[in-house]
Amino acid sequence: MMDIKSKRIAILAPVAWRTPPRAYGAWETVASNITEGLVARGWKNVTLFATKESVTKAKLIGWIEKGYEEDKTQIPLVSTCLHISKVMERADEFDLIHNNFDYLPLTYLRFIKTPILTTIHGFSDPDILRVYRDHKDTYYASISDADRDKELPYLATVYNGIDLSNLTFRETPGDKLVHYGRIHPDKGTHLAIEVAKKCGKDLIIAGIIQDQDYFDNSLKPYINDTSIKFIGPVNPVQRDALLKEAYVVLHLNTIPERFGLVMAESMAAGVPVIAADLGSCREVIADGETGYLVNDVDEASAAVDKIGRIERKNCRRRVEENFTIDRMVSRYEKVYEQIFRREAEKHK
Amino acid sequence: MMDIKSKRIAILAPVAWRTPPRAYGAWETVASNITEGLVARGWKNVTLFATKESVTKAKLIGWIEKGYEEDKTQIPLVSTCLHISKVMERADEFDLIHNNFDYLPLTYLRFIKTPILTTIHGFSDPDILRVYRDHKDTYYASISDADRDKELPYLATVYNGIDLSNLTFRETPGDKLVHYGRIHPDKGTHLAIEVAKKCGKDLIIAGIIQDQDYFDNSLKPYINDTSIKFIGPVNPVQRDALLKEAYVVLHLNTIPERFGLVMAESMAAGVPVIAADLGSCREVIADGETGYLVNDVDEASAAVDKIGRIERKNCRRRVEENFTIDRMVSRYEKVYEQIFRREAEKHK
Repeated sequence: MMDIKSKRIAILAPVAWRTPPRAYGAWETVASNITEGLVARGWKNVTLFATKESVTKAKLIGWIEKGYEEDKTQIPLVSTCLHISKVMERADEFDLIHNNFDYLPLTYLRFIKTPILTTIHGFSDPDILRVYRDHKDTYYASISDADRDKELPYLATVYNGIDLSNLTFRETPGDKLVHYGRIHPDKGTHLAIEVAKKCGKDLIIAGIIQDQDYFDNSLKPYINDTSIKFIGPVNPVQRDALLKEAYVVLHLNTIPERFGLVMAESMAAGVPVIAADLGSCREVIADGETGYLVNDVDEASAAVDKIGRIERKNCRRRVEENFTIDRMVSRYEKVYEQIFRREAEKHK
Repeated sequence: MMDIKSKRIAILAPVAWRTPPRAYGAWETVASNITEGLVARGWKNVTLFATKESVTKAKLIGWIEKGYEEDKTQIPLVSTCLHISKVMERADEFDLIHNNFDYLPLTYLRFIKTPILTTIHGFSDPDILRVYRDHKDTYYASISDADRDKELPYLATVYNGIDLSNLTFRETPGDKLVHYGRIHPDKGTHLAIEVAKKCGKDLIIAGIIQDQDYFDNSLKPYINDTSIKFIGPVNPVQRDALLKEAYVVLHLNTIPERFGLVMAESMAAGVPVIAADLGSCREVIADGETGYLVNDVDEASAAVDKIGRIERKNCRRRVEENFTIDRMVSRYEKVYEQIFRREAEKHK
């Protein structure tokens, strides 16, 4: 076996936020987890390309001082194209570039010799497929089997790994229904409220309001200080306290989930999840073992009644076996190795 | 002298609109004028990179079917980055790429050997200077001496050239004040109204409303069917009819003008222009000969009183000598020649 851990890896993070982000910043979080995970597993030549103020145990190369979401004087595309082109200009210094920054890097692909692995963290709009489909002579990873485009040549699915610190496993359930994440119709907060009313159980809702109209019109009329509470965004410590209260987490997304961090976090704390059977949910939850997949509010309410059958330690185990940072990075190691082998074949 | 007219030139147009545009599309218009002008002057190997439905006597290469402003299913950046990278991937087929599509193409510069001339059609935001200043090892043209960044190494100023068809020169003036262009505070429509009221003369306003609040609050209360008329956007034929009515065109821009097509068009019809002394206005107008430069409404009103001193044929002549498509293209020919000489020096 080749000594892959001495290979020179560049991790390309977005520059919307610091890596790791101070608060929100999903792709920066993953880029950080991959970078630090590789270092922890003994990789010797890892370089993180991120904003200059980013924090890493790997080598940091930055061109943009602060994330464009944290410094609104920046035109996002200006920072983005400078950041990406700087990485590409230095491509020869690396054996592999692992792109976590969407489609624009692919348009530099034909100018460089270094292979690129692109993790597609989501299709923000169907139109961005034009760039991916125009670049099939490269390497892709998906974040779930569900979140794939039929035409692209994927090497693997690599589930996101989560940081288990601040996710305390608790054998004893709380007595509340809990719903948390971005407050947006896609996440089905209104359906969680319907389920709570139907079951006659208390519901706690947490998260940043991403769609204020939705919150004001579809949720606020039902929120009170007793049976249906809204507590705003939670940091990891507050999230842990929230999950302590949870009997079950309701994740009734209305569009296909790409991966679903909330489900993995909940299960890590031992909390079963009732989720809509859309997108990746059936890959994250083991139906009947760590929660239930449902198709509507009636099924969700029925599932609440049988949640006592779920063994909470199965929830935790599912995360430990599938959704930790170490598991994610060890999967990426295998993907990297495949790429090195294919490249070696090519140049034989 | 080298036979530059057999050199292989790529003209890179934007893909917001068709080239030439059906109606609005300033940069596409210039890219078309340069392309057709080169062909008209005997260049044998001109290739226009533009939307697929574009119209040209040169060779057309397109990757994007329709302009993203004409087909709103497109993410503009997706079309933009595909279009630009396709040109760059074919760079070796050309002796020079003439970029009329802003800053993103520069981020591919270090991957190609073909020289690029970038005409900076305007700094939409000061932040885009980060890309230009990071790429000083290339060739720039400005569209006026005023619209330059101090740090960039410009080869030349090349004024925009206008199409003189549908701009009939008339010896006899009309009796109206005329203001036309985008209706936006930058263009000082409200100041034109103040001048009209001060002089007691009729004003005709034409153009697309780009700032509806500005129109509703600052202009509409003064508009009537007699002394201050608003007639909406005008096509070239309507513009010619409008200029027939004009005693003078008021162009009281409130921010520095980058070039100022309206001033050139007005003068082409023989109509003198009163313009704010900001940006390029003093390069387009010959003060006291083809109009007057002013600093406020009082000066503008005083200038209206002495507009009879301007010889209308001087206005037309100034355009013919400086702002025709043929003049623009012959200036670009000289710039191209400079570039070919410099590149030949480099590779000696």
